[in-house]
Amino acid sequence: MTELLTPATKASGFDSSHIDVAALGQALLGKWAEVRLQARELAGMPELHKIEGLTHTEHRARAFGQLGLLVEKNGVHRAFPPRLGGTGDHGGNVAGFEELVTADPSVQIKAGVQWGLFGSAVLHLGTQEHQDKWLPGIMSLEIPGCFAMTEIGHGSDVASIATTATYDADAQEFVINTPFRAAWKEYIGNAAVDGVAAVVFAQLITRGVNHGVHAFYVDLRDPSTKEFLPGIGGLDDNVKGGLNGIDNGRLHFDNVRIPRTNLLNRYGDVAVDGRYTSPIASPGRRFFTMLGTLVQGRVSLDGAAVAASKVALKIAIQYATERRQFNAASDTEEVVLLDYQRHQRRLLPRLATTYAASFAHEELLQKFDDVFSGAQDTDEDRQDLETLAAALKSLSTWHALDTLQECREACGGAGFMVENRFTSLRADLDVYATFEGDNTVLLQLVAKRLLADYSKEFRNLDFGVLARFVVGQAAELTWHKTGLRQVAQFVADSGSAQKSAKALKDEDTQHELLAGRVQAMVADVAAALKGASKLSKDQGAELFNEHQNELIEAARAHAELLQWEAFTEALRRIEDAGTRKVLTRLRDLFGLGLIEKHLDWYLMNGRISMLRARTLAPYINRVLAKLRPHALDLVDAFGYGPEHLRATIATGIERERQDEARDYYRKLRASKDAPLDERVLLQKAKASGRS
Amino acid sequence: MTELLTPATKASGFDSSHIDVAALGQALLGKWAEVRLQARELAGMPELHKIEGLTHTEHRARAFGQLGLLVEKNGVHRAFPPRLGGTGDHGGNVAGFEELVTADPSVQIKAGVQWGLFGSAVLHLGTQEHQDKWLPGIMSLEIPGCFAMTEIGHGSDVASIATTATYDADAQEFVINTPFRAAWKEYIGNAAVDGVAAVVFAQLITRGVNHGVHAFYVDLRDPSTKEFLPGIGGLDDNVKGGLNGIDNGRLHFDNVRIPRTNLLNRYGDVAVDGRYTSPIASPGRRFFTMLGTLVQGRVSLDGAAVAASKVALKIAIQYATERRQFNAASDTEEVVLLDYQRHQRRLLPRLATTYAASFAHEELLQKFDDVFSGAQDTDEDRQDLETLAAALKSLSTWHALDTLQECREACGGAGFMVENRFTSLRADLDVYATFEGDNTVLLQLVAKRLLADYSKEFRNLDFGVLARFVVGQAAELTWHKTGLRQVAQFVADSGSAQKSAKALKDEDTQHELLAGRVQAMVADVAAALKGASKLSKDQGAELFNEHQNELIEAARAHAELLQWEAFTEALRRIEDAGTRKVLTRLRDLFGLGLIEKHLDWYLMNGRISMLRARTLAPYINRVLAKLRPHALDLVDAFGYGPEHLRATIATGIERERQDEARDYYRKLRASKDAPLDERVLLQKAKASGRS
Repeated sequence: MTELLTPATKASGFDSSHIDVAALGQALLGKWAEVRLQARELAGMPELHKIEGLTHTEHRARAFGQLGLLVEKNGVHRAFPPRLGGTGDHGGNVAGFEELVTADPSVQIKAGVQWGLFGSAVLHLGTQEHQDKWLPGIMSLEIPGCFAMTEIGHGSDVASIATTATYDADAQEFVINTPFRAAWKEYIGNAAVDGVAAVVFAQLITRGVNHGVHAFYVDLRDPSTKEFLPGIGGLDDNVKGGLNGIDNGRLHFDNVRIPRTNLLNRYGDVAVDGRYTSPIASPGRRFFTMLGTLVQGRVSLDGAAVAASKVALKIAIQYATERRQFNAASDTEEVVLLDYQRHQRRLLPRLATTYAASFAHEELLQKFDDVFSGAQDTDEDRQDLETLAAALKSLSTWHALDTLQECREACGGAGFMVENRFTSLRADLDVYATFEGDNTVLLQLVAKRLLADYSKEFRNLDFGVLARFVVGQAAELTWHKTGLRQVAQFVADSGSAQKSAKALKDEDTQHELLAGRVQAMVADVAAALKGASKLSKDQGAELFNEHQNELIEAARAHAELLQWEAFTEALRRIEDAGTRKVLTRLRDLFGLGLIEKHLDWYLMNGRISMLRARTLAPYINRVLAKLRPHALDLVDAFGYGPEHLRATIATGIERERQDEARDYYRKLRASKDAPLDERVLLQKAKASGRS
Repeated sequence: MTELLTPATKASGFDSSHIDVAALGQALLGKWAEVRLQARELAGMPELHKIEGLTHTEHRARAFGQLGLLVEKNGVHRAFPPRLGGTGDHGGNVAGFEELVTADPSVQIKAGVQWGLFGSAVLHLGTQEHQDKWLPGIMSLEIPGCFAMTEIGHGSDVASIATTATYDADAQEFVINTPFRAAWKEYIGNAAVDGVAAVVFAQLITRGVNHGVHAFYVDLRDPSTKEFLPGIGGLDDNVKGGLNGIDNGRLHFDNVRIPRTNLLNRYGDVAVDGRYTSPIASPGRRFFTMLGTLVQGRVSLDGAAVAASKVALKIAIQYATERRQFNAASDTEEVVLLDYQRHQRRLLPRLATTYAASFAHEELLQKFDDVFSGAQDTDEDRQDLETLAAALKSLSTWHALDTLQECREACGGAGFMVENRFTSLRADLDVYATFEGDNTVLLQLVAKRLLADYSKEFRNLDFGVLARFVVGQAAELTWHKTGLRQVAQFVADSGSAQKSAKALKDEDTQHELLAGRVQAMVADVAAALKGASKLSKDQGAELFNEHQNELIEAARAHAELLQWEAFTEALRRIEDAGTRKVLTRLRDLFGLGLIEKHLDWYLMNGRISMLRARTLAPYINRVLAKLRPHALDLVDAFGYGPEHLRATIATGIERERQDEARDYYRKLRASKDAPLDERVLLQKAKASGRS
């Protein structure tokens, strides 16, 4: 491949590193490799693919039909109990689900609504009786259903929902009611057309006491006529920015009566006489336990976002190794897009981040499986899972949007054609940034956890122990304790610029810088908030608000560190030396990219000297040039075939066209029919005039 | 309005500043205020509005019909000569065109194809004979047409297009030919369905000499049957990421013969015997003169991007002043979204950038009008216009995408509903970043200009004179000469943090920092490239490539400076003291935001001390809090009415729903029917257990 002998490659000298694509692909597939491969086979079926340009009603009908195909192909029941035909494989279920994004994100998310939310709620919040009664119909799609939690008035603030479920002991029924318009259930998948039942979240009121949010199974529509049952109404959300294969809509309930036993009562029950009992005494803990099942959605969005980023980068990088711009009409071999430094800057750091996000997701999925399988299911495990999912889902869903957009622009006008996938995937994934928890809200949850841990363990600021707190999340890795000593670097830094830059390549240095930043940011904001608990509620809120931005940035820094650590941990598992060498370089690109992104912080906090800082960008440029020859291997290792990519520009058509053009010019020149160039004639005339 | 008494506002004390919204609105409308208001009235007509959810074929048919309405309402002929029914008003024409984006970007761009590109090419590249022959039909839409320039193989590289127009003296005809697939015309608006003629760009070959790219008028389809004429073929681009009201497609020509006189021969002609003549001797200058008419597209995209950003911010900020999240169920007045610091951080800096882009666009439009009206039309004027358009179009189109996305996310799930406009506008504007010149390519044109000026005037590096070069673009403003003395600040900085931060508010300081950065970046990259001309072509290209990223960043810095200067210049024209005070603060937010964005650069180049740098973010947070109470006025001044916004969430519906909810809870509490809260009961029980 002539592209490999680029100026950039030549400049960096001969490079012996080589990637074992198959082995790397296996490493990326992770623990649930087999399930992923099965799911990819399914996702490769034309019957499941998105057809572009359908109206939203046509797309909805197609997506509903596709869910039936998923049932038929046994692709969506892994999480359900073996006694009902599932395999009780929670990790595998999510892994398989994630891969469906390449077929059509609408199919994926509609399946997520049916089995991941509606079915999961019955599975996790109901008792065996509930499961046996409803899960078979839910699994077979005989009961298409909704997960009716979100209300117009309360997007991410579930505790404040206003729908009520008031127990009427005389009738032994709950009365589900929507008190005002802001309490309408909103954005509910399957609500506009397909849903015949729903798990409705409402404030459980019995004997004059509100016991907080609980889940109730409610029939919505007559299965044969598809008409709403009495007391139930709704509206169609119609066209959305994407995911138009899903019939989102609104629902409201006008004193709808359901049997007492329709309360999904695993974590809270009401006796015939109206007495409320719960195995979890604390209403707060009870609420978070019930909502804990939602984490599955965040985990799978994280994985789906990573998968979409992989598809986008494979398409864009394939094209960038074929497409030639400026001077391509010449007969000599001109550089392809990916040989341009800027193009490398656009695509390769995003490739590095995608690898980091992929390895981090695998850790998250493992943690999820540990908790949901019951293998490691303490309160602390669940809290860790919540925090990890919130941190990673935020970063990866934003990353997917950023990557899809950069890829689309990097492919110019061709990137805008829907046949090349970027715009379509981007539109569909847009909402991933705000659903299953708004990313900005999720990062605040992460920040609260960082602060809570910080103040629980250390009432007073203590840098050494704080180091343990943050670095403690780095699993088995034992890093140098980081701390204030880094400030000394500012003074001690010396030597050539080259030496300065290379030091940043050191794994420990990267970790020190990244972890040190998290520590310092948490410590800084904790110090600023120190007196908050002594203030009035209003003043406390005001103080927090004055530091909201810092809190969110600290959470983001923490999430980035987790990604870096996951990438680094994954390197340890790569056996092939050449692959490890290239991948280490890619990890360096990720780490150095983070440091470059936050370079202002490192400089103003004295963690990096001015001298060293100035060497960073040129050094990153050299790393990019060294990675350039491996770019195709790195995206090929993702393992997506033409049936998943389905992008015209990734089929080699560009290379064919350029070969044809080159041939044409070669023959033209040989034929001597080629027109002379006016500019050349002018130069010759000038020259002869002078001579 | 209770929102104005937010904690943030209270914290910053009573603020006497007040905006005269009407006067500010007039200032924003600029020189072509009347045309803009006429165009907005047109854009407010329901007949011109985008209907969401149409198929691309339905949308195309509607858009074509809408062009007829634009003709009927006399909205699109301002640029054409008075003798043909126009008004010869180039600036007004573009101003009016820009405003159409609020109706439907497809209508805008399809109008742009018909009159701004196809019609403009006949107007600017043809002679009066051509104009009289074809413009009436083009103006009336009797001749829907294409601007067939771009080829598959060459997106932004027009000089390399491969379509040939070879003169056959015997027949007195040009033969238009597509030699291979990469030379197919691609992404051509009106090509798939509507176009019956086209201006085709091709290499003009006569008497065995290629005279470079020229424009030819070519009939494409039989006007009655809409079938392609013999020798002409094409393909439909089908569904795109947006702008689906436009029938983009491909075109190819198999030795199609057209009369000699169909060459649009203003800048280059072929006599009956095949002799080529041109009023412009240099082929390079001739090419750029002919392509100069394209600048109109860039100017209008700049304006349209600004208009779309304004619409988005009005919707999102309106909603953010009504929407309450977390604790909204309480009876007390809780903070609305815009009182959250992070929400201010998300929206207000983008509002500041939109103001900067708006004022900068007005300067660009003035420059454009000066050149196209002939008032100031030297080669240098045209070059300045090209550079300014390239710089501003890049920044504003990216800014629009960023703003639309941030607004969409800031409105959560509601932002994703197509009825709230963000996703629809974003999809349509996506391609603005790469058409009429890929932004990345355009920024390189800017960089080349910066370097060319630099090396033309100063063969050796000279900081003092360099300052003049960059600051020379700041029109009448006389700024302090900037230069190396800023480095001294690092040493000299002292005093309280408060004092340090406030110094950055100083206008001259902001300008010194922004202009100084441009100077230094250009000087640095010029120094690195110093020997390039002595190297071989390959080595020179390699050296350039190694600094491509820096070049682009220098161009971006330059463009940002131009925006800042335009904003600052506009402040001088604001007469109302209160308005000027608020707007100055908004300009400070823009300037400080730029400095914060590039803080790493300022720190590592010793332009800002660590001490001062650390005060920047808190200071910006305080500026945000001070601007918060004026946010609604600032978006109201954009002057877009409900007929332009057409977003459900900007209608006050959110406030109504919250009022209803608040009433409900108030009455419930008064009725004593309100359920008790389990958490409150538990606390009471605990308390009584202890006592």
